[in-house]
Amino acid sequence: MAIEHFADRLTAAVERAGSPLCVGLDPRLDQLPAGLLSRHVQAHPGDPLRAAGEALYEFGSRVLEAVAGEVAVVKLQNAFFEVAGPPGLDAFARLIQRARNLGFIAISDSKRGDIGASSAAYATAHLGALSVGGAEVESIGADAMTVNPYFGSDGVEPFIREAVRRGRGIFVLVKTSNPSGVEVQDLRSGSRKVYEEVADRVWDWARRHMGACGYSAVGAVVGATYPEDLPGLRAEMPGAIFLVPGFGAQGGSADDVVLAFDEKLRGAIVNSSRGIILAYQQPEHQDLSPERFEEAILAACRSAKAQIAAALAVKRG
Amino acid sequence: MAIEHFADRLTAAVERAGSPLCVGLDPRLDQLPAGLLSRHVQAHPGDPLRAAGEALYEFGSRVLEAVAGEVAVVKLQNAFFEVAGPPGLDAFARLIQRARNLGFIAISDSKRGDIGASSAAYATAHLGALSVGGAEVESIGADAMTVNPYFGSDGVEPFIREAVRRGRGIFVLVKTSNPSGVEVQDLRSGSRKVYEEVADRVWDWARRHMGACGYSAVGAVVGATYPEDLPGLRAEMPGAIFLVPGFGAQGGSADDVVLAFDEKLRGAIVNSSRGIILAYQQPEHQDLSPERFEEAILAACRSAKAQIAAALAVKRG
Repeated sequence: MAIEHFADRLTAAVERAGSPLCVGLDPRLDQLPAGLLSRHVQAHPGDPLRAAGEALYEFGSRVLEAVAGEVAVVKLQNAFFEVAGPPGLDAFARLIQRARNLGFIAISDSKRGDIGASSAAYATAHLGALSVGGAEVESIGADAMTVNPYFGSDGVEPFIREAVRRGRGIFVLVKTSNPSGVEVQDLRSGSRKVYEEVADRVWDWARRHMGACGYSAVGAVVGATYPEDLPGLRAEMPGAIFLVPGFGAQGGSADDVVLAFDEKLRGAIVNSSRGIILAYQQPEHQDLSPERFEEAILAACRSAKAQIAAALAVKRG
Repeated sequence: MAIEHFADRLTAAVERAGSPLCVGLDPRLDQLPAGLLSRHVQAHPGDPLRAAGEALYEFGSRVLEAVAGEVAVVKLQNAFFEVAGPPGLDAFARLIQRARNLGFIAISDSKRGDIGASSAAYATAHLGALSVGGAEVESIGADAMTVNPYFGSDGVEPFIREAVRRGRGIFVLVKTSNPSGVEVQDLRSGSRKVYEEVADRVWDWARRHMGACGYSAVGAVVGATYPEDLPGLRAEMPGAIFLVPGFGAQGGSADDVVLAFDEKLRGAIVNSSRGIILAYQQPEHQDLSPERFEEAILAACRSAKAQIAAALAVKRG
């Protein structure tokens, strides 16, 4: 059976869901709904990391079930799982599989990047399958992952190779959403900035791996918090799908994020993490029982979808 | 009890070992000594990732025992463990602890970097302790880790905070050893290159966290494969300890690496990975039983130490 191209798969899934929203699973252990962690601590006496991993899994799994059918894409922030060590990575890998089984495209947001041989091992870990004594087994098995470009092409190409071979995708950091990203990314290189040079590289990789839909298996991370940079980057990487963090809690508005879309109003997915998965902490949900936190998350997810849809409708004109 | 400063601990350990060599554990599953992996595959039928993790642990543990007392520092490449998923990370964390119990300074070579909150979680994972239901537990518990600077200061500072608080260290990527590192790192920013601007930032972080020994808890990764850049970087970050990859298999010579040391012949540790841990594959060891691979590794370790010592003696003059 031919392997479906990642961008074709992603584009069709976004079309079906009717929204480019991506729900970001960045679960902070100390902000889980009341009672959730302590139940797992009691169930795993003397094994706090296992308790943490199981709590993260339960929370993540319930979020996934709550937003199933609402969005096409979920992004799991690796750091908030790695913090619980091996049981945390176990929860991460199981949630990636749970997400895929529920029909989501699952992105491992892990920002890996190293010299070639090490990048190849990371690519196998997150997107590939490890060969062990004749068996081929997925370690994490995500649909896509985020990649750091500081090592240049020989550090990025192993991720591209693995992605293309297996119908997966990567999103290369170009312009990150945090305030100090500018310190390195906005250094001027002649008339251009470092992130623009990186964008050039990304488009050079991306245009070689286009799907039938007109988009590539190689995309770019482009933050919503620098809206003035979005039109230029959109023009520079016309067929690269943008993964856009920074919407919502980080300060990017729906009007900002629409700048990441092309004239067909496609080519971008917009991530919201804390604004959705911590919605149960909002004042309007103070009377909601912690047992029913999913209701707040579903409402926030629908609200984010509606905001993006409204802004895209204005752009459609 | 006061927490000892990382640089003081590292400097004293290098002094005791009489060598700045760091042994790099980058174990490739398909290049383990004959028979080692298959034993674990047989011991864990139906669980190939566990078999892989246990094989990596056995190999790593035997390397650590072979070089104990020979060198002060070991560096574990996270990618070659993450490739085996949760059991791989379990092997990684156990080897870090095994190394520390054997008296090594153990570096988690994981090149993490993200926006602030995610970097904080990675810092807790690799250097800190997670708080779970009143318990504080180390997830990985390394002495130091490598950090990617692409996110700028708010992505790096959480690592510095955790390191300083707990007597640990970080090494920020400045100039990597791979051929295409230049694509981003050597972009010209005015009269200077991107990696020089990063070096400036690193020194600005480093000089605030100096130990009694005159070196900082914040160091820099500076590859041996660009020897012409080493003197400038050495001058730019005078009290930062350099972690120098690229010696040996990657092409850096002992004469190259001495350029990373200051006039006191201190301030750098020199990593060799494949040149040491794959020594049993060399023609001169073709008659060595795979059961005794440690002998080849110990010989290669001593040879690397001697090469560096000889080059440092020439520099001493």
